[in-house]
Amino acid sequence: MKKIVFLTLFALGTLFAKAQQNLFGAQDIESAVVHPDNTVTFRFVAPDAKKVEVAGDFAEKAEENPVGGVVGTGLLPMTKDENGVWTLTTKPLASEMYMYLFVVDGVATADPNNPYVFRDFATISNVFVVGNGLGDNYLVNDVPHGTVSHPWYPSKKSGKERRLTVYTPPGYEKGKDKYPVLYLLHGYGGDEGEWSSFGRATQILDNLIGKGEAKPMIMVMPNGHMAMEAAPGESTMGFYKPSSEKDRADEPGDFEIGFKEIIDFVEANYRVIPDKAHRAIAGLSMGGFHTVHISRIYEDTFDYIGVFSSTGSLRRVSAEGIYKEYKKGLKKQKENGFELYWIAIGTDDFLFDSNIDFRKTLDDVGLEYTYVETDGGHVWKVWRKYLTWFTPMLFKH
Amino acid sequence: MKKIVFLTLFALGTLFAKAQQNLFGAQDIESAVVHPDNTVTFRFVAPDAKKVEVAGDFAEKAEENPVGGVVGTGLLPMTKDENGVWTLTTKPLASEMYMYLFVVDGVATADPNNPYVFRDFATISNVFVVGNGLGDNYLVNDVPHGTVSHPWYPSKKSGKERRLTVYTPPGYEKGKDKYPVLYLLHGYGGDEGEWSSFGRATQILDNLIGKGEAKPMIMVMPNGHMAMEAAPGESTMGFYKPSSEKDRADEPGDFEIGFKEIIDFVEANYRVIPDKAHRAIAGLSMGGFHTVHISRIYEDTFDYIGVFSSTGSLRRVSAEGIYKEYKKGLKKQKENGFELYWIAIGTDDFLFDSNIDFRKTLDDVGLEYTYVETDGGHVWKVWRKYLTWFTPMLFKH
Repeated sequence: MKKIVFLTLFALGTLFAKAQQNLFGAQDIESAVVHPDNTVTFRFVAPDAKKVEVAGDFAEKAEENPVGGVVGTGLLPMTKDENGVWTLTTKPLASEMYMYLFVVDGVATADPNNPYVFRDFATISNVFVVGNGLGDNYLVNDVPHGTVSHPWYPSKKSGKERRLTVYTPPGYEKGKDKYPVLYLLHGYGGDEGEWSSFGRATQILDNLIGKGEAKPMIMVMPNGHMAMEAAPGESTMGFYKPSSEKDRADEPGDFEIGFKEIIDFVEANYRVIPDKAHRAIAGLSMGGFHTVHISRIYEDTFDYIGVFSSTGSLRRVSAEGIYKEYKKGLKKQKENGFELYWIAIGTDDFLFDSNIDFRKTLDDVGLEYTYVETDGGHVWKVWRKYLTWFTPMLFKH
Repeated sequence: MKKIVFLTLFALGTLFAKAQQNLFGAQDIESAVVHPDNTVTFRFVAPDAKKVEVAGDFAEKAEENPVGGVVGTGLLPMTKDENGVWTLTTKPLASEMYMYLFVVDGVATADPNNPYVFRDFATISNVFVVGNGLGDNYLVNDVPHGTVSHPWYPSKKSGKERRLTVYTPPGYEKGKDKYPVLYLLHGYGGDEGEWSSFGRATQILDNLIGKGEAKPMIMVMPNGHMAMEAAPGESTMGFYKPSSEKDRADEPGDFEIGFKEIIDFVEANYRVIPDKAHRAIAGLSMGGFHTVHISRIYEDTFDYIGVFSSTGSLRRVSAEGIYKEYKKGLKKQKENGFELYWIAIGTDDFLFDSNIDFRKTLDDVGLEYTYVETDGGHVWKVWRKYLTWFTPMLFKH
């Protein structure tokens, strides 16, 4: 019997093999290979190259990287063998999701043997995960899975349909339960796809809910740039090169003001518990700034607020439009009360000083917050960790 | 007022600019740029490279391409200017979605200035769309958008949850209507994500429904490799290099037999019309083979059958298991009746002869089909076109 199965498999394989061949560009090697001891091997075939390096966010001496490749990352030299295969094995790496590119004679290039790339703004990077720790939360594990979907909500504010990423928890389809909602906002240059790619929000929620560490919840990830309907490549702008001039030219305040349309859409189309105790909002960088202002503008709407690597106090911006009544709004928010106002930032973050100012403003109005200071800069490693810490604190009362 | 808006934008931009910089690897040029006359310009900065070429499926002389890059495609030479920028502008291209890579001194590499890449099996390719014709169907246009989601269905057959891609038509969330369902199957080496990336199935349906050319329908795209729970990177196998040995080692027949679990899940969880007149099934290559067998095994289940670039008559496979009663099953299918059995294949397809055999088998049992012969080989260009032609014929009675 085994032989027959083998033969039939062989027949199938042979018959359809060409189905793939229009695309097979990979070299016949594996890269990046994560070993059980958390070392990682990179391989790249380029017999004629003079110099090949790995630019990755796991490498030290970040500031010495002269290449645009993965800025804020270090460069590690690879070694060529007699077959023209360049190799590098790292020292053991901390459990984490990492990103990298190769730098071939000075030109940044994706690893052709690693088909896993995520896009951020106008660039793709290869990714890999080192498990055996924190990174396990960023992998798909043998736990029940929630559903990720991309509905479009009608936005009168922008005159368009706008694309969302929505996570519904495991069992949502089958059951009749109503759920709390976390609105999770991306940073400048990002879009509705970012928290579920680099951010690993889907995996984090699946894993935390699976372990019983977070309550089952719906997570809504909108696009915070009102000048965009949807992520690059998913909108009527087609396959253009993302640029700040083109698709991030937002009118300040428009996203915050238009946010009601998102809440309305979610509460009309999903089984949610539509009250303050079951609404949370959080965001990173620009999304943290959005969070500060949305959570105070929408009075008595959110019981849980998360501000990751951000600030609420842009002096120039604060002078105008919805930002004018900034302090007054915070005071009102304090009076209305809430369960958690969680602020986290890394000591290497370029917004660190601005975050100090922001907290002073909160102190001035007497708004109580939880402050968490960590290592790290303005990077995804930090934001994934914050989400992993933040979500278990939600909807516990 | 304008000045103030500008200033605030400037402040926002400056403040959050660094949010992106951990990832900015792109060179400060655009590529691939599609011009109004359908010519396309590629650009790549590599001052030290000796030779840079574009490997794309729009280039002629496919067979002369010696590189693994995009097999089945031609190579076009680029020209270097005094700044080390390599450039190529094509002649006007037919309206279509194309894929390409650069070949830099013999090494295939993704275009660092085009963040749009799709993965097929173990490789990524850059993509772009030339509009003004057929290709417009593959773009997001200003029409109402359906929702793409990724639920997981419980599969007793495999003992796992397995990931689906599901398209629900515009208005599904709001309304109470019930819809017909098209089950759309991928080819060997593919997964549940392929029809919605390379296949542009989402855009095709949005556009055809928007123009009133196709009926609003739900489209279900499962993973046809039972050895996989989900597409590479979306399963518990992590970020591995896809390989036929690892994740395509299916037991022949398992997918077809297990298909009932998919129908059951869809009919239990979506607003569908659960009868034969409102069920269609179609697939490309291996998915066409699956379609042939599922549509005859599940008696009286599907009124619409689409076999794209495929065959049903694998002699060796047909000798065993569910394939043993192949002809008998077809006869039963004929007796039960159906609305449409649509077969299409390109004259350059490596399965062309096998498709002739397959049609002879159908003739033998007197099963009537519509046969469409086109240009082209075993490639996505052909399959997108077939889907564009097939879906308007569905659910019309």
